[in-house]
Amino acid sequence: MLENIVFIGAGNLATHLALALNNAGKKIIQVYSRTYSSASQLAIKVDAEPINDIKLLNKNADIYIVSVKDSAIEHIASNIKLNNKLIVHTSGSMPMEVLKEASDNYGVLYPLQTFSKNKNVDFHNVPICIETNNPANIEILKNLAEEISSNVREISFDKRRIIHLAAVFACNFTNNMYSVAEQLLIENDISFNILLPLINETAVKVFEDSPKKLQTGPAVRGDDSIISSHLKMLANHKDFKKIYKLLSDNIKKMNNK
Amino acid sequence: MLENIVFIGAGNLATHLALALNNAGKKIIQVYSRTYSSASQLAIKVDAEPINDIKLLNKNADIYIVSVKDSAIEHIASNIKLNNKLIVHTSGSMPMEVLKEASDNYGVLYPLQTFSKNKNVDFHNVPICIETNNPANIEILKNLAEEISSNVREISFDKRRIIHLAAVFACNFTNNMYSVAEQLLIENDISFNILLPLINETAVKVFEDSPKKLQTGPAVRGDDSIISSHLKMLANHKDFKKIYKLLSDNIKKMNNK
Repeated sequence: MLENIVFIGAGNLATHLALALNNAGKKIIQVYSRTYSSASQLAIKVDAEPINDIKLLNKNADIYIVSVKDSAIEHIASNIKLNNKLIVHTSGSMPMEVLKEASDNYGVLYPLQTFSKNKNVDFHNVPICIETNNPANIEILKNLAEEISSNVREISFDKRRIIHLAAVFACNFTNNMYSVAEQLLIENDISFNILLPLINETAVKVFEDSPKKLQTGPAVRGDDSIISSHLKMLANHKDFKKIYKLLSDNIKKMNNK
Repeated sequence: MLENIVFIGAGNLATHLALALNNAGKKIIQVYSRTYSSASQLAIKVDAEPINDIKLLNKNADIYIVSVKDSAIEHIASNIKLNNKLIVHTSGSMPMEVLKEASDNYGVLYPLQTFSKNKNVDFHNVPICIETNNPANIEILKNLAEEISSNVREISFDKRRIIHLAAVFACNFTNNMYSVAEQLLIENDISFNILLPLINETAVKVFEDSPKKLQTGPAVRGDDSIISSHLKMLANHKDFKKIYKLLSDNIKKMNNK
């Protein structure tokens, strides 16, 4: 059983994950961050020791969770020596081998979710993709992940990176579409909340059927007169106009195959 | 009170709207469609008379709801004479004046929602945008709309068309992002359902805060190494690669203002 956890990193993902594990009864014994204030901010929430000097890392934890930006993972791993202690990162796009300098036992615990400050996340349904270099660790890591989620899957790097790429479209780009809509409304003194039932229905629908089959709107109907009137309305928004054109063309191509 | 309704058009929107009005106790007396079979399909659900000859239009209804594709509305209106009977269309992008040949009393009843075959819609929260040429009709139309929705708003054409444009981004383009994600996953033998908790959370979040503030992902973090590795992964998907680039740039621009 992995009971004592050290977090390396104190950003949004680290914070939400540490809180969930703490709520599940796990002990977060230490939080490292480059700045003492950000280490403290998370540490105080989970009753852990904050540090900002990696040399002070507690070597007696059961697992080390590295949740920093992708480009920093390998550098951090090369600066710590954990012998055979289990170390995992939380990235969708990095192979687990970036951790190999730190320990002989490494892996990945990647929660597929979007984490914002000040917005609580219920981990119960969050898919957690796990992977370990040593097959003996997979059940151990799975047991830990299952303390917070009922949706834990062993996923190879090749698939994990595709899932992350797909998530950028389904989450980050989708949210950007909401932002464009919000800006168009604000400029015309219309409240964004008029779109909320539509946004909800669009998301809820894909729980029941394939999004490709559910596509609606001018592009899939081939209603070129609306499309050209919308493009005219976007004359002063060159970037939005390009997006409108590209995505309308993409809808036509994907749905007429 | 508008009790007896004729539907002109029998597509997805007409079907869902007719069902909702029927459930609210209104009488749909007739359904017109260009083909008898599609008129019948809707008519049988609401116990109405199906017709496919516009000359057979019942002239004794209280209101005529034209729910056909935008480019067909004016042509249909010019082929019917209703004197002073109220006629409305359901389009987000057409001015109400396209109906003026049909009657002296015209307007719009535009439900802001996405309607697919075989997917029931709860109208209760659906924003319904209404407009009438004759101020005396606005309360009458509002009362009808409030039979099915608690979110009825009088909205001018100038705003309605912006709302429709914003809805294309927030719904149609968002759904296309889901489709792209689905295709990337399917090609790699990964089930689309792994994304559902993320899709749900992305939508739910904007009920509480502005999407611009909630933006997450590599573009807003300025994580160019992930962006370039994602672009490499999309080498065989030229259209998806263009979309990835354009939307990542748009996120950077919108969030760094």
